[in-house]
Amino acid sequence: FLAPCPKLCNVPTVIVMVGLPARGKTFIARKLTHYLNWIGYKTKVFNLGEYRRKNFGATKPPSFYHPDNKEAVASRLKCCALALEDMTEFLKSGSGEVAVFDATNTTRARRKFIYDHCDKNGHKVFFIESCLENPEIEMQNITEVKVGCPDYKDMNAEDAIKDFKARIENYRLAYQPLSVDYDRKLSFIKIMNVGEQYQINKVEGFVQSKSVYYLMNMNIIPRTIYLVRHGETEYNQENRIGGDPQLSDRGVQFAEKLAEFMSGENIPELKVWTSQLRRTVQSAEYVSAAVSNVVTEKWKALNEIDAGICDELTYNEIKEKFPEEYKARSESKFYYRYPRGESYEDLVNRLEPVIMELERKRDILVICHQGVMRCLLAYFLDHELTALPWLEVPLHTVFKLSPTAYGCKEEKFTFGVDAVSTHHIPSIESSENLQTDLD
Amino acid sequence: FLAPCPKLCNVPTVIVMVGLPARGKTFIARKLTHYLNWIGYKTKVFNLGEYRRKNFGATKPPSFYHPDNKEAVASRLKCCALALEDMTEFLKSGSGEVAVFDATNTTRARRKFIYDHCDKNGHKVFFIESCLENPEIEMQNITEVKVGCPDYKDMNAEDAIKDFKARIENYRLAYQPLSVDYDRKLSFIKIMNVGEQYQINKVEGFVQSKSVYYLMNMNIIPRTIYLVRHGETEYNQENRIGGDPQLSDRGVQFAEKLAEFMSGENIPELKVWTSQLRRTVQSAEYVSAAVSNVVTEKWKALNEIDAGICDELTYNEIKEKFPEEYKARSESKFYYRYPRGESYEDLVNRLEPVIMELERKRDILVICHQGVMRCLLAYFLDHELTALPWLEVPLHTVFKLSPTAYGCKEEKFTFGVDAVSTHHIPSIESSENLQTDLD
Ligand SMILES: Nc1ncnc2c1ncn2[C@@H]1O[C@H](COP(=O)(O)OP(=O)(O)OP(=O)(O)O)[C@@H](O)[C@H]1O
Ligand SMILES: Nc1ncnc2c1ncn2[C@@H]1O[C@H](COP(=O)(O)OP(=O)(O)OP(=O)(O)O)[C@@H](O)[C@H]1O
Ligand SMILES: [Mg+2]
Ligand SMILES: [Mg+2]
Repeated sequence: FLAPCPKLCNVPTVIVMVGLPARGKTFIARKLTHYLNWIGYKTKVFNLGEYRRKNFGATKPPSFYHPDNKEAVASRLKCCALALEDMTEFLKSGSGEVAVFDATNTTRARRKFIYDHCDKNGHKVFFIESCLENPEIEMQNITEVKVGCPDYKDMNAEDAIKDFKARIENYRLAYQPLSVDYDRKLSFIKIMNVGEQYQINKVEGFVQSKSVYYLMNMNIIPRTIYLVRHGETEYNQENRIGGDPQLSDRGVQFAEKLAEFMSGENIPELKVWTSQLRRTVQSAEYVSAAVSNVVTEKWKALNEIDAGICDELTYNEIKEKFPEEYKARSESKFYYRYPRGESYEDLVNRLEPVIMELERKRDILVICHQGVMRCLLAYFLDHELTALPWLEVPLHTVFKLSPTAYGCKEEKFTFGVDAVSTHHIPSIESSENLQTDLD
Repeated sequence: FLAPCPKLCNVPTVIVMVGLPARGKTFIARKLTHYLNWIGYKTKVFNLGEYRRKNFGATKPPSFYHPDNKEAVASRLKCCALALEDMTEFLKSGSGEVAVFDATNTTRARRKFIYDHCDKNGHKVFFIESCLENPEIEMQNITEVKVGCPDYKDMNAEDAIKDFKARIENYRLAYQPLSVDYDRKLSFIKIMNVGEQYQINKVEGFVQSKSVYYLMNMNIIPRTIYLVRHGETEYNQENRIGGDPQLSDRGVQFAEKLAEFMSGENIPELKVWTSQLRRTVQSAEYVSAAVSNVVTEKWKALNEIDAGICDELTYNEIKEKFPEEYKARSESKFYYRYPRGESYEDLVNRLEPVIMELERKRDILVICHQGVMRCLLAYFLDHELTALPWLEVPLHTVFKLSPTAYGCKEEKFTFGVDAVSTHHIPSIESSENLQTDLD
């Protein structure tokens, strides 16, 4: 098959996190990993804490993290070596392209150890350091993700905070931040105070360049993303795909309910994004009318997957005219490209700027289409790309996503307005199969 | 009409260059201006040197640039104020969205003066500083662009270099680089040693974020970009647009000549990019066969403009079936979108990642299509977007582009293989008109 855009880097890359505890390393590592997987680079996080807990147990006193505790230092180095072996195996087995090493890596010696291992094995290395000189955000991070973590499962919150702060101080004793002078030969980005400032050194190649751009657009301000398909259309009712139909009566009813719901969400400056197709634009009109201060924007990139020669046909017409296509598509739905149209893989590619803008923005309602929404959901909820074309995204259902420390909370809302079902269970190869891919 | 992607910033922005002479400020200002115009932001450079020359004459001794020369300092401030007035007029008249202020702006006082003016007028300000601690590149820049500039029109090269170096030293006396501490409230990027390092502070909004990404992908390594359309096809001969036809016999002959030509160019690691359509892929096969070490990549983004309902029709069929479309298109060819297809504006949007990769890469041969090639040429040769759909891009002609200090050298090569003409002069509304937009 043809890729939507060439794979511009074939050199395996190790991304190495750097920073004191509670600097968002795990947060950044996971988000970046989602993103890289979503744009088609097989990426996996290797978390040193998990190796430590597996090999030496979970609960360790702060003194375990003191640089003079020789025995502990040796244990931690051993965990590091184990993790590096696993990363190299992942990258050499052909199943992986980018490994993200999530650990503090706060000393030069440790970073040299990692670099040398990678260099020997032909991996490129890119460091991401997070620095924080803001005690409020530090405290927020500790209470948000550290107090409840496995290391403190038997401790009360106050003691856990005290213990964790002591751990940070012990790390600080040996901390050697990346330096544009000392480390000028390394490729790295330093993120200061959650993106207030960046220092960037020797960025090389596509994966690094894309990662830097992504990191610079990321933010941690709490916000909500509402994803919804347009209201039902006459084409939905007829089992017809693609086209540019208008809403059915029930579709209009849903749009009214959606407007009521969004109004109740009380969002001061709501942005509404639609595709350029009538069914999403029409659905948005009810929202703009009901909610004040709405800014609406139409994205071509949010248009439904292009079914090419199958566009505007009913399922039965497609099956009759193009039986081969039907078969090819069910065999490999993510990569299958409609003749003269698009594949889900193409769709992901075209949605990349939308994701980048979603990351930069606050509260947004995205009114889109089944195929498009599957791609967006896969990004936020970290679904496998090949499973993406089968995600269940019913009509007349709002998905409310609230990013949390390491993931995304998902809530669904329906308002009792019926719509035809456009979903289909993959294992049952019923005659409804093709109809599900577009609405 | 519908934009391919929403305009994500409506706040007028002033981009302020900072740096000693011969730091590439004018180079960066112009390239970034090309790029912003090309992605649809009306952008213009305001060069202080031109104001100075217009108001105080061209030839000034180095002492004119000494910080203690009170009279000269006052003259230069006056020029600055004049330029700022013009920028504000440009941004407020509705004809401009981004103004790039190209001057040294090396002192805090000067930058405060600019910032206050912009703030008062509601412009956002983004500083771009270029620093260089590499005497070889400095010398190269001086000889490349300074010795021949209007200031030195009556001086020999050696004296001009000496004079220019003295000018730099006088600037250095008062130079206050942007500092992450002192200037922490400003939005800026500092580019160190032609992109070896970057410092980035408080990037805000779409224009700044895009500019930063662009600057980080820019490089000044000399290289060559070859743009060419596929060889002639049977559809070309039939006046039929779109589709996925194969090469005609003459098309094959051209592909062979192209391969010979590229082989003679002696490029050690040539990259060849094609679209996913057969006529470009087929053309590239001859090149890969003739040149060693070629890496070929297929881009969906390089596919020809999608003619939607007009796809695969001959010109006569289109005129008969869709006379309204014909009329709409000739009235506004850049913005006109084929029903169910694309506009040139859409095409520019979809080509943006291609441009970003072209900027990052060395020598490349791009084998594409008439519409796509018009967009790429408009970027490199800085044509107006609305003139872009009328650029003359004949079949069987290689455009060789070599980026120079401030622009791009353009050479054309043909190899005596005939092809049908697919071009058309805009003022003559002949029946060939539509046929020209696709090949
Ligand atoms: N760039 C950043 N700087 C500081 N905090 C951030 C940043 N990005 C995300 N965060 C916050 O960090 C918190 C998560 O901390 P995280 O567990 O990732 O820290 P860590 O550096 O991995 O700590 P540890 O070393 O203990 O594993 C989240 O609440 C998130 O909001
Ligand atoms: N980031 C950069 N750092 C240093 N040199 C660069 C950079 N980008 C481009 N150049 C080089 O700078 C040269 C052009 O110099 P330019 O005229 O732009 O300098 P300038 O800073 O505008 O000088 P002046 O203050 O005299 O106007 C080109 O040869 C180009 O290769
Ligand atoms: Mg962590
Ligand atoms: Mg200049």
